[in-house]
Amino acid sequence: MTEQELGITESKEHNPGEWYAEVVQKSGLADYAPMGGFIVTRPRGYALWERLQNHLDGWFKETGVQNSYFPMFIPESYLEREKDIVEGFDPEVAWVTHGGHDELEERLAVRPTSESIITPFIAQWVRSHRDLPMRLNQWCSVVRWEATETKPFFRTKEFLWQEGHTAHATHEDAWEETMTRLHQYERLYEEVMAIPGMLGRKPDHDKFPGAHTTTTIEALMPDGKSVQAGTSHHLGTSFAEAFGIEYTDEDEIERTAHTTSWGLSWRALGALIMTHSDDQGLVLPPALAPTQVVVVPIWQADTEDAVKEYAADLAAELDGEFRVEYDDRDERNPGFKFNEHELNGVPLRIEIGPHEVDDGEATLVHRPDGESEVASRAEIGDAVDDALDTVYAKLYAAAEENLAENVREAHGRGDILGTIGRYGGYVKTGWCGDEDCEAVIKDEIAAEIVMLPLDDDEGAVHDTCGICHDEAEETAYFAKSY
Amino acid sequence: MTEQELGITESKEHNPGEWYAEVVQKSGLADYAPMGGFIVTRPRGYALWERLQNHLDGWFKETGVQNSYFPMFIPESYLEREKDIVEGFDPEVAWVTHGGHDELEERLAVRPTSESIITPFIAQWVRSHRDLPMRLNQWCSVVRWEATETKPFFRTKEFLWQEGHTAHATHEDAWEETMTRLHQYERLYEEVMAIPGMLGRKPDHDKFPGAHTTTTIEALMPDGKSVQAGTSHHLGTSFAEAFGIEYTDEDEIERTAHTTSWGLSWRALGALIMTHSDDQGLVLPPALAPTQVVVVPIWQADTEDAVKEYAADLAAELDGEFRVEYDDRDERNPGFKFNEHELNGVPLRIEIGPHEVDDGEATLVHRPDGESEVASRAEIGDAVDDALDTVYAKLYAAAEENLAENVREAHGRGDILGTIGRYGGYVKTGWCGDEDCEAVIKDEIAAEIVMLPLDDDEGAVHDTCGICHDEAEETAYFAKSY
Repeated sequence: MTEQELGITESKEHNPGEWYAEVVQKSGLADYAPMGGFIVTRPRGYALWERLQNHLDGWFKETGVQNSYFPMFIPESYLEREKDIVEGFDPEVAWVTHGGHDELEERLAVRPTSESIITPFIAQWVRSHRDLPMRLNQWCSVVRWEATETKPFFRTKEFLWQEGHTAHATHEDAWEETMTRLHQYERLYEEVMAIPGMLGRKPDHDKFPGAHTTTTIEALMPDGKSVQAGTSHHLGTSFAEAFGIEYTDEDEIERTAHTTSWGLSWRALGALIMTHSDDQGLVLPPALAPTQVVVVPIWQADTEDAVKEYAADLAAELDGEFRVEYDDRDERNPGFKFNEHELNGVPLRIEIGPHEVDDGEATLVHRPDGESEVASRAEIGDAVDDALDTVYAKLYAAAEENLAENVREAHGRGDILGTIGRYGGYVKTGWCGDEDCEAVIKDEIAAEIVMLPLDDDEGAVHDTCGICHDEAEETAYFAKSY
Repeated sequence: MTEQELGITESKEHNPGEWYAEVVQKSGLADYAPMGGFIVTRPRGYALWERLQNHLDGWFKETGVQNSYFPMFIPESYLEREKDIVEGFDPEVAWVTHGGHDELEERLAVRPTSESIITPFIAQWVRSHRDLPMRLNQWCSVVRWEATETKPFFRTKEFLWQEGHTAHATHEDAWEETMTRLHQYERLYEEVMAIPGMLGRKPDHDKFPGAHTTTTIEALMPDGKSVQAGTSHHLGTSFAEAFGIEYTDEDEIERTAHTTSWGLSWRALGALIMTHSDDQGLVLPPALAPTQVVVVPIWQADTEDAVKEYAADLAAELDGEFRVEYDDRDERNPGFKFNEHELNGVPLRIEIGPHEVDDGEATLVHRPDGESEVASRAEIGDAVDDALDTVYAKLYAAAEENLAENVREAHGRGDILGTIGRYGGYVKTGWCGDEDCEAVIKDEIAAEIVMLPLDDDEGAVHDTCGICHDEAEETAYFAKSY
């Protein structure tokens, strides 16, 4: 890479779309594939996905989930067995029609989501209440043929995700499962990605096809739009009935199971990049960064040996406890290295020059804000640990502040439109429950109801619908969304 | 499950095909999908694949490989850019022709292997000798539309695998890479799966399309057939030329890179099951077994409390160091439990009855041979460790013995046919290098040349071709294969 290629030329504030695309490509996360709507995930991008996977997969396994793998193709007749799924996904299914030189007797859908192929197998495997709960998950890619502009990780026809599918004896058990997974998504966003999430449910007209309740975690981006960051569906008995999950209960009576499904995709990476990164490039929370600490020696001819020895020794000491890179390339100057590691989102840079060597110290520089601190060489491990905690705390605080400042109350069509138009973010208002009232806002500025609070005790804020002024049934959060 | 459902009814010796299918299904590894050629990998089967992945992925990363993810679809025009790939794979490609309600302008192949989509990106990313070697890998599924009977893990239209793709400055570097990966496959088979492998290369007419050299690890199954257990290809410059991987060398001259690709699929699970399992069900090496140790308390009414307390305490002590299940189900008798854990391939069973409690001991029973030993309660951790090592050693020794006994020399058409027909296994003979001489054998008994030794110093065993009696160019190993 040349010096010039390192620089991000677009501005996050003024041109977030172009800026985003530039950061993704220049920091080596992803490239565009030859077919519109597809991307190539490069090692630095995939490493982020692997770390998200490891966290989430560990939590799933601790809570009774087993990984499995189902075919990537679903026969058309299976897809048709749950009518809501067909209606919901048929317009965006990619179809395999030929195998080798022969036309297939029945078209095969490339899975857009796998309820229609997993549920019939759960039905075979579940016989008695003792087989419940059954909790399966798969990490795979799915395809949805949406005709929109490609935006890496946010909008791609093929995307990586996990999809969990579970069956339970009762409605309550399925609800508990739905919330367990939603809270694991929240934990991933908060603890690992340093992004606060808002939990809620989707209005009935925006639920997953066939679902009883769709819960969502929403994350507010700095450009004022909301990202649907993960969804967890209570499917009631609709899929269990369509595919016949019956179990013999303790009282010997045959009952229908209650199912859930829940998914989190690489859109999480999109939210991560969009939330923390800046005009110098990628910014990563320490838990996800492939390289957490880079040690850069800064020398002149007469200090080279002493500086390099000191720096290499320090890097070696940190290695193992942290993910460390020691960057002693001769062919690059320190300024180039600083820019490159900032572009790539290394959370902490340690600069070692002759002064640090003489004083038995190290200079620690935080990404993203460039704040520096001097640490004692003798206690470098603790200092790095603290500095990484500080970087995480800074990132989380900034995202939290953005969220706190951007939830506003509004009442009346003009007020709602004006508030979203001027500030972006969320607008809380009363809602009568009628989709038409959402349409009034949506048609005007493409903002919609992204969530309803899960616990509507506080719903009494609004007595009347913010749009039609009839009695309010609940509180709605309007926002523009990805 | 009922007592009856636990039993394997087919015989491995007399009906290996039916026996295999029964073991796979009854031990809960996989089921058949509604579309012929596809399977559903159940949690117990997927857990084995995850463990293989973890071992191999760790070794890859230690040796400079980076994971990435490329689109599952390849435009037809890309597939056509390397002519050998088209000829090799075109007959078995699944084609996506429609997205939603629209016919696509260009058909998309569901990847049968990804050289044609990965190599053009490596060409974009490689500019200078400093960018080499570049080593990418992806864990994914691929589809090959072969019209054969479904055999879980061995023959399925969709299968899980890893595919590595690398680029290097020189032919020699690419050769070293090819061998590094082949040896990692060998290590996986030997250390993790307890299966000795034979390393070799394929005859020219059986190489990967476009490859300079295809190396293979072959594993001999108890039914006398060879499994191509993993392949590593030196691709020479054919793909680099087709897709334009050029780099500027140290001397400022533009040179063409040399590439490799290498893959190991879930066929490894097929080889694992076929090699070690028996008429009681699955047999697993301890490194792969999801449950390594099961503790079964055996009590009467008057001893229940003492036995259960002792057994639970012992299980708790082992937990953490080993993967332990404590099976104190009341509704099943010990005999049922023994059968069930044998079916599922738990390598070590610990039986605790009143005698063990009184004597401060534990009875350890090995799978597969039922050999039992008495260990002191005080040193149970060491005893389990040793017993698991012993189980591994027994499995490896049996497989090694099968291999050693089944490599035979033969010379002359009748001798070769007779030896393979009577004993199975490998027949070593001289070979002139002409495909027609292989056809003489293949047409008769469906045995073929599965490998040629990598190092043919010992090739002097045969001066003449075992079939045509012309001068021998090398030594060939004939076998029937999966």
